[in-house]
Amino acid sequence: MNKGPVISIAVPNEKDLDIFKPAIETFNRFQIDYEQVVTSAHRSPDGMVEYAKGLRKRGIKIVIAAARGAAHLPGMIAAYTTLPVVAVPLKSPFLDGTDSVYSMLHMPTGVPLAVVGVDATENASILAIQILGLFQEEAAKAMVGIKESLAKEVRKQSENIKKNYG
Amino acid sequence: MNKGPVISIAVPNEKDLDIFKPAIETFNRFQIDYEQVVTSAHRSPDGMVEYAKGLRKRGIKIVIAAARGAAHLPGMIAAYTTLPVVAVPLKSPFLDGTDSVYSMLHMPTGVPLAVVGVDATENASILAIQILGLFQEEAAKAMVGIKESLAKEVRKQSENIKKNYG
Amino acid sequence: MNKGPVISIAVPNEKDLDIFKPAIETFNRFQIDYEQVVTSAHRSPDGMVEYAKGLRKRGIKIVIAAARGAAHLPGMIAAYTTLPVVAVPLKSPFLDGTDSVYSMLHMPTGVPLAVVGVDATENASILAIQILGLFQEEAAKAMVGIKESLAKEVRKQSENIKKNYG
Amino acid sequence: MNKGPVISIAVPNEKDLDIFKPAIETFNRFQIDYEQVVTSAHRSPDGMVEYAKGLRKRGIKIVIAAARGAAHLPGMIAAYTTLPVVAVPLKSPFLDGTDSVYSMLHMPTGVPLAVVGVDATENASILAIQILGLFQEEAAKAMVGIKESLAKEVRKQSENIKKNYG
Amino acid sequence: MNKGPVISIAVPNEKDLDIFKPAIETFNRFQIDYEQVVTSAHRSPDGMVEYAKGLRKRGIKIVIAAARGAAHLPGMIAAYTTLPVVAVPLKSPFLDGTDSVYSMLHMPTGVPLAVVGVDATENASILAIQILGLFQEEAAKAMVGIKESLAKEVRKQSENIKKNYG
Amino acid sequence: MNKGPVISIAVPNEKDLDIFKPAIETFNRFQIDYEQVVTSAHRSPDGMVEYAKGLRKRGIKIVIAAARGAAHLPGMIAAYTTLPVVAVPLKSPFLDGTDSVYSMLHMPTGVPLAVVGVDATENASILAIQILGLFQEEAAKAMVGIKESLAKEVRKQSENIKKNYG
Amino acid sequence: MNKGPVISIAVPNEKDLDIFKPAIETFNRFQIDYEQVVTSAHRSPDGMVEYAKGLRKRGIKIVIAAARGAAHLPGMIAAYTTLPVVAVPLKSPFLDGTDSVYSMLHMPTGVPLAVVGVDATENASILAIQILGLFQEEAAKAMVGIKESLAKEVRKQSENIKKNYG
Amino acid sequence: MNKGPVISIAVPNEKDLDIFKPAIETFNRFQIDYEQVVTSAHRSPDGMVEYAKGLRKRGIKIVIAAARGAAHLPGMIAAYTTLPVVAVPLKSPFLDGTDSVYSMLHMPTGVPLAVVGVDATENASILAIQILGLFQEEAAKAMVGIKESLAKEVRKQSENIKKNYG
Repeated sequence: MNKGPVISIAVPNEKDLDIFKPAIETFNRFQIDYEQVVTSAHRSPDGMVEYAKGLRKRGIKIVIAAARGAAHLPGMIAAYTTLPVVAVPLKSPFLDGTDSVYSMLHMPTGVPLAVVGVDATENASILAIQILGLFQEEAAKAMVGIKESLAKEVRKQSENIKKNYG
Repeated sequence: MNKGPVISIAVPNEKDLDIFKPAIETFNRFQIDYEQVVTSAHRSPDGMVEYAKGLRKRGIKIVIAAARGAAHLPGMIAAYTTLPVVAVPLKSPFLDGTDSVYSMLHMPTGVPLAVVGVDATENASILAIQILGLFQEEAAKAMVGIKESLAKEVRKQSENIKKNYG
Repeated sequence: MNKGPVISIAVPNEKDLDIFKPAIETFNRFQIDYEQVVTSAHRSPDGMVEYAKGLRKRGIKIVIAAARGAAHLPGMIAAYTTLPVVAVPLKSPFLDGTDSVYSMLHMPTGVPLAVVGVDATENASILAIQILGLFQEEAAKAMVGIKESLAKEVRKQSENIKKNYG
Repeated sequence: MNKGPVISIAVPNEKDLDIFKPAIETFNRFQIDYEQVVTSAHRSPDGMVEYAKGLRKRGIKIVIAAARGAAHLPGMIAAYTTLPVVAVPLKSPFLDGTDSVYSMLHMPTGVPLAVVGVDATENASILAIQILGLFQEEAAKAMVGIKESLAKEVRKQSENIKKNYG
Repeated sequence: MNKGPVISIAVPNEKDLDIFKPAIETFNRFQIDYEQVVTSAHRSPDGMVEYAKGLRKRGIKIVIAAARGAAHLPGMIAAYTTLPVVAVPLKSPFLDGTDSVYSMLHMPTGVPLAVVGVDATENASILAIQILGLFQEEAAKAMVGIKESLAKEVRKQSENIKKNYG
Repeated sequence: MNKGPVISIAVPNEKDLDIFKPAIETFNRFQIDYEQVVTSAHRSPDGMVEYAKGLRKRGIKIVIAAARGAAHLPGMIAAYTTLPVVAVPLKSPFLDGTDSVYSMLHMPTGVPLAVVGVDATENASILAIQILGLFQEEAAKAMVGIKESLAKEVRKQSENIKKNYG
Repeated sequence: MNKGPVISIAVPNEKDLDIFKPAIETFNRFQIDYEQVVTSAHRSPDGMVEYAKGLRKRGIKIVIAAARGAAHLPGMIAAYTTLPVVAVPLKSPFLDGTDSVYSMLHMPTGVPLAVVGVDATENASILAIQILGLFQEEAAKAMVGIKESLAKEVRKQSENIKKNYG
Repeated sequence: MNKGPVISIAVPNEKDLDIFKPAIETFNRFQIDYEQVVTSAHRSPDGMVEYAKGLRKRGIKIVIAAARGAAHLPGMIAAYTTLPVVAVPLKSPFLDGTDSVYSMLHMPTGVPLAVVGVDATENASILAIQILGLFQEEAAKAMVGIKESLAKEVRKQSENIKKNYG
């Protein structure tokens, strides 16, 4: 679709990339070009600032950023860019990630985040495709396909039941 | 920018539009065409389905939907459209809108919502402008202006302090 | 008791039926005719609407609907039917299903749900039998039996203790 | 519809009846015969037991019971009757009635409650009408009327907006 | 100390007695006579009432009652007796027993419970011994012994550390 | 009943005594001798220790201690005495006193508190009377009177309703 | 004590300085030199970085930073400095500032915050004085004075009571 | 750096020292002299008071105290010393340590705690080093080293990704 990645996935730790596998598969399935970056608002703030300031210039359209606990990465990227930032609160050991959610929910006016569910990386990727679909024909088609497959799966399960229980 | 509205704001009650005033002002300031709709997933479901199915055809790009309590409106619109849906949990009388937030947060895979803070209608509009800015020059410029005015205001306050306390 | 099912159990995923086994056993024990349906407010909304609109015509008296997370299925069925809807919030990975509960608790006036406990499918079936018992002699008798067996079990345990500890 | 009341509303304090006004109006509008009772599981337990044991004999079909805090009234009535009990958690000074909700939510298997929202007395009455409607023609008609008026009100508000904003 | 038990431990299920083992050992260690009873406010309410009404006559001084979820047993016993009732909220599958705690915390004026921590059966027994100690010499001595052994254990651990780390 | 006070009420601030008025009235009504003390675990720890160590010698039987926020007063008194300590969590500006409750709920084994509801000073006094009633005839009678007046009040309200609504 | 301020108070909005008045008075009373700064991690991130990077060079010893909602200011300052950062979660309209607290509590290893209570600006200043007192004689003395006045006030209240109630 | 320990780590149970291993390693790596103490506000209050009163005289500069549940140890130490006290809420079986956090958060004015995250012993040690660094050259250098190694680790992970995914 694009020369160079249009989606940038940012996580604070290498091992957080595991949870993004379904998102990655989604992007791969629909040939949407993405990049993955490890950066930390708290531990490598200068690197984070450089990353966030360079996003638009490098052709990125949408950022997906994840964090846990006192989760500042998505919000700090949003502080430095005018691109839409999808924020994924990661499950933390405290109240199933409530701290991650509340660290992202009430951003100051002017610096919004698009928060999805805890660990909901696949939905983050699909929200990104919905946004891309506003100006990229292929992404719009991909989104229609995703929606149809959802209904198809429910229908299949529904028919299974009739056989099993009916 | 566009013939006909590109943003659709949906609320379950006429009186919920009051809280959207800052969002409306933002859209007006940047001449972004929007519509406002009252519809209810629970009380006028047929109307809601008709509304949600017709969104794309009518040229809408982004939906901003608000609800409170067992807040189903944003999620049900998302069920019927492939457009991005920004969800605004409204403050309810129960735990400051926690019920509204949790009714939106963990959507099933394939049907994401972009959740903003409780009553955060202005941030919903700014998130919408960020998305529009990906393919509309004017919105992108508007967004740069919003960001600059944020920093300017902080700077002004910062200088006030020096005078007042220094 | 009835030609055709009088209870309809609706779940969003085939695998959610496992948790309904105690409910099913209860209905089977008292020969109450039920059906099981997989449908999703978010993923197969058209199917869900068709299902909900057809309930009364098909002779269904009571719906038992379960969902988790941003749990909209029971509420959306209630939007389309005037039958009583018993809502079962399913345990989610977030705060033991608090999100499921809060997605069902504060429905708008006019569209009530009868919410039972998290994963409380057996109590949902017993509540349905209590309702059936208002106009079906057999269900009323079944309910008396259920109540007696509860007290009997406590009494038996109570006597066990006397033997063991007394 | 019925000789003698078919609905029994039970509250622990006289002053809790104020919050039932919308429920009462609903019953009056549809000429559904109800009674109101003050009784307390904790303060007048013998009276409560007598009340609960006599419900069926007196022709009551559905109980609506409200309580707050360590809210035991609905659950204790349910312990003594096989009639369906609709439980209304009342707003308490602690976390907006969370204690009332949690005192009702996880009843033991065999003794279900149909929990509605905090202070949701009107929805409790409408749930009762839905149940009555399963075997009383007039209640079923009443319920259809309620549903239609919901959609009509949304439509009217929707048209207002077009005038005001369009 | 006493002919016949002075402490009555009431649980809703036989298997809940396991968690009372440390309490039982404490009573045994100090030769305090207790009884264990299985009774349920919801499932065997008549038995529960009989039990609660007979407590004082049978020479019981203090009740320790445990329950989980919509936990009504301690509160209902308190409704029927003027003896002090120590309430033990049991860990439930919902928010670590928050529902059990909130079902006991805000009792109506006139019907207090002495709530201890979740699953804190041993502390319940020690609170009972503190109360007994107000009028039974042996219990008062037992309590002094308990307190001394607490400090002794800390001191021993403290000395261990010095050896290990010093 | 007793030469010198048998109940000691301890609060961290003079102004916290206001909330104890209903408790005081209860003690006065039944001529139970009490004292009121201002002491603070955090701000006057030496005074608090002296107070707690002297309780038994001064003839006190039961302590009622209140605190809010990081509420340590009841627990620290319990650390220094073998008398039963009734703990009253006071409403704080944070989550309606949840912090006060959680500062008291999970005491270490061996140092129990008898926790009552938030601001439930009157129930604290009644719990104290229940305990006194185990060895003081007058307190036992007082408790019977309290219980009877509860039921009488419910009955009166119940009759009012019949007049008003019947 | 020091040429130039040793404490830097940072808030995201001019109006947040009101809540710091008791902290300011404390610093003034003990002649501790402080500065007040308005800066925002989200709205003026470049200014915030410049501020945080310059702290040590300007002779600041301790930072007190406050924020609300998705509260990133204290954490981001901590990312850029090796000075101790005292974090004050400000009361927000959501659950009494729970979001502010959880945005600060679980910082990544290596970037700690010293979190005090919600709106606890005075305690933040006293914690700062405790730290200063480790290497500044005057601050150490100030702290002793603070502590003594706490106990004195409790003692005075205690004596008042004796007069009033004794 | 110092003759004798400058940091005192206090825990209520010997086994709580396990969770302090990363803190201990940090102190050892930077040759910061520390001590470990087992003491309990509730179980060995006299020992705790003696410990807390002697801290300053023994040359301790900073206390790190941990506790769980009704967690009073850090607050009680703070009541007896003017040294800064870093409080570590330990994970408890109730809501992931929420009770521990709320037992520490809202200390009375004049007796602050520096609260870190649940089980965040390593951050507690680093906060202590930041404070030491204000007046000890070596600690200041250690802190710079800690900060650099954080960024270095992020950078290394970042480069790994480029190799793995680029």
